Amino acid sequence: MAEPFRIGLLGHGTVGGAFETLLGERADQIAAITGLRPEISGVLTRSRGNFEQILANCDLVVELIGGLEPARDHVLRAMRAGRHVVTANKQLLSHHGEELWGVAREHGVQLRFEASVAGVVPVIRVLQESLAGAHVERIHGIVNGTTNYILSEMARTGCSYDDALAGAQSLGYAEADPTDDVNGKDAAAKMAILARLAFDTPVHIDQVSYEGIEQITADDMEYAEELGLGLKLIGTAERIDGRLAVRVHPAFLYEGHPLASVHGPFNAVTIESSAITEITMSGPGAGGPQTASAVLGDVISAMIPPASTPETTQALEIVDDVESAFYLHMEVEDRPGVLAEVASLLGAEGASIKSVVQKGLGERARLVMVVHPLLESRFFAAVERIGALDFLRSPPRAIRVIEEQFV
Amino acid sequence: MAEPFRIGLLGHGTVGGAFETLLGERADQIAAITGLRPEISGVLTRSRGNFEQILANCDLVVELIGGLEPARDHVLRAMRAGRHVVTANKQLLSHHGEELWGVAREHGVQLRFEASVAGVVPVIRVLQESLAGAHVERIHGIVNGTTNYILSEMARTGCSYDDALAGAQSLGYAEADPTDDVNGKDAAAKMAILARLAFDTPVHIDQVSYEGIEQITADDMEYAEELGLGLKLIGTAERIDGRLAVRVHPAFLYEGHPLASVHGPFNAVTIESSAITEITMSGPGAGGPQTASAVLGDVISAMIPPASTPETTQALEIVDDVESAFYLHMEVEDRPGVLAEVASLLGAEGASIKSVVQKGLGERARLVMVVHPLLESRFFAAVERIGALDFLRSPPRAIRVIEEQFV
Repeated sequence: MAEPFRIGLLGHGTVGGAFETLLGERADQIAAITGLRPEISGVLTRSRGNFEQILANCDLVVELIGGLEPARDHVLRAMRAGRHVVTANKQLLSHHGEELWGVAREHGVQLRFEASVAGVVPVIRVLQESLAGAHVERIHGIVNGTTNYILSEMARTGCSYDDALAGAQSLGYAEADPTDDVNGKDAAAKMAILARLAFDTPVHIDQVSYEGIEQITADDMEYAEELGLGLKLIGTAERIDGRLAVRVHPAFLYEGHPLASVHGPFNAVTIESSAITEITMSGPGAGGPQTASAVLGDVISAMIPPASTPETTQALEIVDDVESAFYLHMEVEDRPGVLAEVASLLGAEGASIKSVVQKGLGERARLVMVVHPLLESRFFAAVERIGALDFLRSPPRAIRVIEEQFV
Repeated sequence: MAEPFRIGLLGHGTVGGAFETLLGERADQIAAITGLRPEISGVLTRSRGNFEQILANCDLVVELIGGLEPARDHVLRAMRAGRHVVTANKQLLSHHGEELWGVAREHGVQLRFEASVAGVVPVIRVLQESLAGAHVERIHGIVNGTTNYILSEMARTGCSYDDALAGAQSLGYAEADPTDDVNGKDAAAKMAILARLAFDTPVHIDQVSYEGIEQITADDMEYAEELGLGLKLIGTAERIDGRLAVRVHPAFLYEGHPLASVHGPFNAVTIESSAITEITMSGPGAGGPQTASAVLGDVISAMIPPASTPETTQALEIVDDVESAFYLHMEVEDRPGVLAEVASLLGAEGASIKSVVQKGLGERARLVMVVHPLLESRFFAAVERIGALDFLRSPPRAIRVIEEQFV
């Protein structure tokens, strides 16, 4: 009979319930692998359980409460009492990660958090372990399943943003209040965590700029298709001249990009480095059983070998002006010289045009183009001047384009 | 000044040289993370170095000799002397894995082998750690870059197998003697290793059936495109009624399958399980720096925490007759009743037709179809009877089709 390994479970919502079920199903197999039989020794919810008692009677704490407090307090007290902690809490780590990882090192306990980013996609472990010696240059991620589902549906059906959001809500892919998903904040928290690990630099969520998908129209999607582009909400973290940029925004991808074929509620992350070229990982980004699987993988790892998040050894500067390629969409009057004037304003800022589509006549005339990468500040300076031109019938619309590096 | 961590390097070919270079570049960073500074303390090649001396003066052995002997002897002696071992040797592990993992456990040392399968794609670590508690149902893998490059080129350019192979050789994606790549044997060794880890059952390479791509024609590719299919050399390991099937063969994928968009020399693996749905990982499957990166990730893990490959606790039976969907290609005489006779022979074995294309006239008439999954033995029984029909102008050609599960 294997010795018990006692787990104190904080939070018993969708993921907590799925974790309890999964643990029951897999306990025999885990006991065979580890020599220890995992069991839930206490559960804390808003209405039941006592944190002190649960802590006293467990070997490891699983934190699935979410949010900043009381999660932070409980995780800190658990580690100070010598308990390993497994958490799925992206908010907590993107706000208080350095404090928490420091306390884990100080007390010689593990703080594992695979489920905090991209659900069951094992990006945390791969960054911390497989790529511990790699010099990562860039990460691109689709790390929010709600927005990826909405954009996939808009592309597939031609429907509006509002209709796609309503569909996502009815299928459970979006919350009743989807604000933090659709405005990019959820993805920003996840990118802060990934950037911290990949670039060995402290990154707080407040250092991640983000834009959401609320302004995307069916019209954008239609032009994108003509240009061979697909629209995704992309998180990017990259080295730029010894500095680090981390941001989240809608972006078009060419068909050959490894993230272009990631559809529906799936998440995916591409990690680029000169030695490895690139690794892409994809899978379900949310869901009770999937997230619970990621938690369980962490629990088993904590039962077998020690691991730690080393103290950062660098402090790369965080930059916010980077080079991007752009899609630029203008509703224009149908008369000669329009393209020449726009091209001239772009050219004055160093923007070079890669492809152009002119469509529609009279009231419905459109000028759509893709420009090669340039510093965003210069591009937006050109767009501001373009917006002041008298032949524009509405403000110009700009969306970033991610170009494939290795194909 | 960090203490040294001494690495004995066995083999100094493309990967060995790349490993030495990468280690030099990353030593400072690794010392910052681990507190130990890795260095190569000895190198063994055919013409220089003494194994006993190298062993006596190292903390860990990296085995990049390849093949069965003397690699097996050296790895066993290193582990018995208490040294951790990192290897990229798929042949060794697919033949002698159980012996080697047993000796590692017995002597309390680590035997790590990420680079043995799919290069830098971290599938070994993910199976051993992230998914240690998962009940894996199936693995599909593109685990040979040479064949994936050849098939990608045939699809892209319409060229013949021989021309694509010659192109792969001139670019260094295929060896001068490509036999073990193109006949599926290399992929079979890798699938034996993956299946062992995923299904907790000993798997020897001799238990993996394999077919290669030597018989694939440009004509196959043309029809495939019309049917919305892409051709890949796919390794499959799956549970079937409590048993395990492991094989390698050319197979068509529908466009939505996560492996369908893996082109050129890249490798990719999809892991399916009810709790996780599916995880797909892709990246370069070979190349000196890429493989060296996988080796380095293992070395760093060995420098920090212990890990082991647990003894198997199951012994699932290996099965060889499984259900598959098929593409069936027949050159037929152009006369009435042909489709009806073929359909009738298929129907007698329980095969149901999913889609049919009839093409060409007279001498060039073709009948191409996709049939829904059925037991392979029954399908081939029908094909044998179809082959005896008098209106066939050449033997029928059958290729498996993998249907997407989750889209």
